[in-house]
Amino acid sequence: MLIRTFNPPVRTLMGPGPSDVHPRVLEALSRPTIGHLDPAFITMMDELKELLQYALQTGNAMTMPVSAPGSAGMETCFVNLVEPDDKVIVCQNGVFGGRMKENVERCGGSAVMVENTWGEAIDINKLEDTLKVHGDARIVAMVHAETSTGAQSDVAALVKLAHANDCLTIVDAVTSLGGTPVKVDEWEIDAVYSGSQKCLSCTPGLSPVSFNERALEKVRNRKARVQSWFMDLNLVMGYWGTGAKRAYHHTAPINALYALHEALLILQEEGLENAWARHLKNHLALRAGLEAMGLQFIVKEADRLPQLNAVTIPAGVDDAAVRSRLLNEYNLEIGAGLGALAGKVWRIGLMGHASRAENILLCIGALESVLGDMGAGIKPGVALPAMQQVLNS
Amino acid sequence: MLIRTFNPPVRTLMGPGPSDVHPRVLEALSRPTIGHLDPAFITMMDELKELLQYALQTGNAMTMPVSAPGSAGMETCFVNLVEPDDKVIVCQNGVFGGRMKENVERCGGSAVMVENTWGEAIDINKLEDTLKVHGDARIVAMVHAETSTGAQSDVAALVKLAHANDCLTIVDAVTSLGGTPVKVDEWEIDAVYSGSQKCLSCTPGLSPVSFNERALEKVRNRKARVQSWFMDLNLVMGYWGTGAKRAYHHTAPINALYALHEALLILQEEGLENAWARHLKNHLALRAGLEAMGLQFIVKEADRLPQLNAVTIPAGVDDAAVRSRLLNEYNLEIGAGLGALAGKVWRIGLMGHASRAENILLCIGALESVLGDMGAGIKPGVALPAMQQVLNS
Repeated sequence: MLIRTFNPPVRTLMGPGPSDVHPRVLEALSRPTIGHLDPAFITMMDELKELLQYALQTGNAMTMPVSAPGSAGMETCFVNLVEPDDKVIVCQNGVFGGRMKENVERCGGSAVMVENTWGEAIDINKLEDTLKVHGDARIVAMVHAETSTGAQSDVAALVKLAHANDCLTIVDAVTSLGGTPVKVDEWEIDAVYSGSQKCLSCTPGLSPVSFNERALEKVRNRKARVQSWFMDLNLVMGYWGTGAKRAYHHTAPINALYALHEALLILQEEGLENAWARHLKNHLALRAGLEAMGLQFIVKEADRLPQLNAVTIPAGVDDAAVRSRLLNEYNLEIGAGLGALAGKVWRIGLMGHASRAENILLCIGALESVLGDMGAGIKPGVALPAMQQVLNS
Repeated sequence: MLIRTFNPPVRTLMGPGPSDVHPRVLEALSRPTIGHLDPAFITMMDELKELLQYALQTGNAMTMPVSAPGSAGMETCFVNLVEPDDKVIVCQNGVFGGRMKENVERCGGSAVMVENTWGEAIDINKLEDTLKVHGDARIVAMVHAETSTGAQSDVAALVKLAHANDCLTIVDAVTSLGGTPVKVDEWEIDAVYSGSQKCLSCTPGLSPVSFNERALEKVRNRKARVQSWFMDLNLVMGYWGTGAKRAYHHTAPINALYALHEALLILQEEGLENAWARHLKNHLALRAGLEAMGLQFIVKEADRLPQLNAVTIPAGVDDAAVRSRLLNEYNLEIGAGLGALAGKVWRIGLMGHASRAENILLCIGALESVLGDMGAGIKPGVALPAMQQVLNS
């Protein structure tokens, strides 16, 4: 095979992530590489930490990006907090709750599952019932924004209930961070992880995490060593800790961290509240268009994530063929269903830099065109006016 | 703190890695992000795998970059191959053998250490003696090129001995790959890991790994599940496996993979043998300059890595002050000592794109100037001619 420089096609990314990356972030990525112990880099790390604390709304000193994708951020939370034989309650309402169960078990813990319908928020009453039966559980894990369904749960209330039952909390904020409120300190989340490639609109490959003092106390008082050397917070903090003196742990992904710094700076410039409002307004516009076309959301209105819109694929429509045509004819990526929802839904992301009026116009226009051409029986000519009414409001 | 876009200083990276990144690699890094299941991306992954197979000189189907730095590549090898209660022989001759021990123990295995003097190659007789005593060991782990000392070991012979004793082998080729021969198939290495940021001259954050059939058989026949979800090869291979159908495991670090693709393409264009010869010639030139100046290598000639030159810090010289002046006055990074060698040696890297005549001139000139100014008693005016004699030979 003759291999040449790879020149990727230029796509519009409206799937479940990665999302469109801001040009400033791509530019930051390509700046000259410097050493991971260079004083200039240490200064950048301090700024990055401060920007992350703002994004997560926390004062936690232990706030930093894991040098690997979101699933490694998830694993960082579990390997540090779960000890062998610990009982962990996992609230599942989609694919990622299942991954949490895997993590608990691989740490030698036992997972008690609180099963919720996919596409719905986590039912606090179910958690309460489970906590009554399993009074010896010491951790409750939950997904704030289920990327597989587009449902969000009331993390503040769930955490409060967990604390009342003497449990620490681990929260997945991969898809929520930057798109909808994530208030780590106000909600008293003990450990949280996110991803760079969703509403932060950075390239994939980094996973911001934050641990509060309660969580760190459990890490410090572990009987068993953390099973992962790479993810052991006791070691990682020697590098990401405060002060000028940093101990080498692993070689940090220098350029990826430049990019995250820039992405978080863009978020800070816009302001969190403005970013949340933008995500909501664009969601409402997209929704108007999709519903006018006749497509149905799978999540009820109160639980919907503005940044991830899961809609049912119309009966008789070839899922893969539609996504292929969107990609090939319009360079537009939307997401397929995942897990139990594979083949049943499309997931349309409006995340970070991808949450823009021009993207919504493209998405609705392309969907209307392709579905109409394929005889899917959608209503023509009504989506655009419905959507524009919201955008102009 | 007022935070602005981070504009890194422009350094010449002659430490133990990251090394100077080729402009083509930085350019590749900033190309438009596409989805991790985009057909165009799958094609790029196939090419990347082929380029990696060439760099590692292997036909192993299970060859791919772990989506995290070299230490996660190391952990990927250990968590997949070591089961609880497995006995693993670790040959240590520097910092990274110690990290291997940590990995074995965190996997529930027991590590039998073969201790070698730091700065020397691994002594095959010591391994042989250990194998006689520990006939129940099933894995032997070793570092090919010790980044902490600059010594290389005879992996081909060590692997042969391990196989004769019914042991699988895990080899650290982080610093060797691309700079000195690493012949995975010819040497019959069972599992190997490397890093993107050394002689491949890519940005840090990725770790190429390769497993042969013998190693995969052990992974497939494990009694215990792999303790890491993120690093479980059974899962990762669903995404990196062959064929057009890829299952989502984690979101791949898209842009970092563009960069590795380009870095490996540059290596292929140069040709492995030419790259090895270049590293050797530039090492000889640097050596001539350093020795003319009066600096002593800590590794004996036969065991020296051309890409990592560890020299003793002259008596009475302030280690940190010299490195600071090189950085601040010449934008030149050289490496400090690590572990037991901290404060005793400097590590001068000539890795990948950093292994160039102009870098050697800069390094020797800057060192001569700073050491002379600090009254270190080095011989002035002789380094440059000695070095140029080699470069012009």
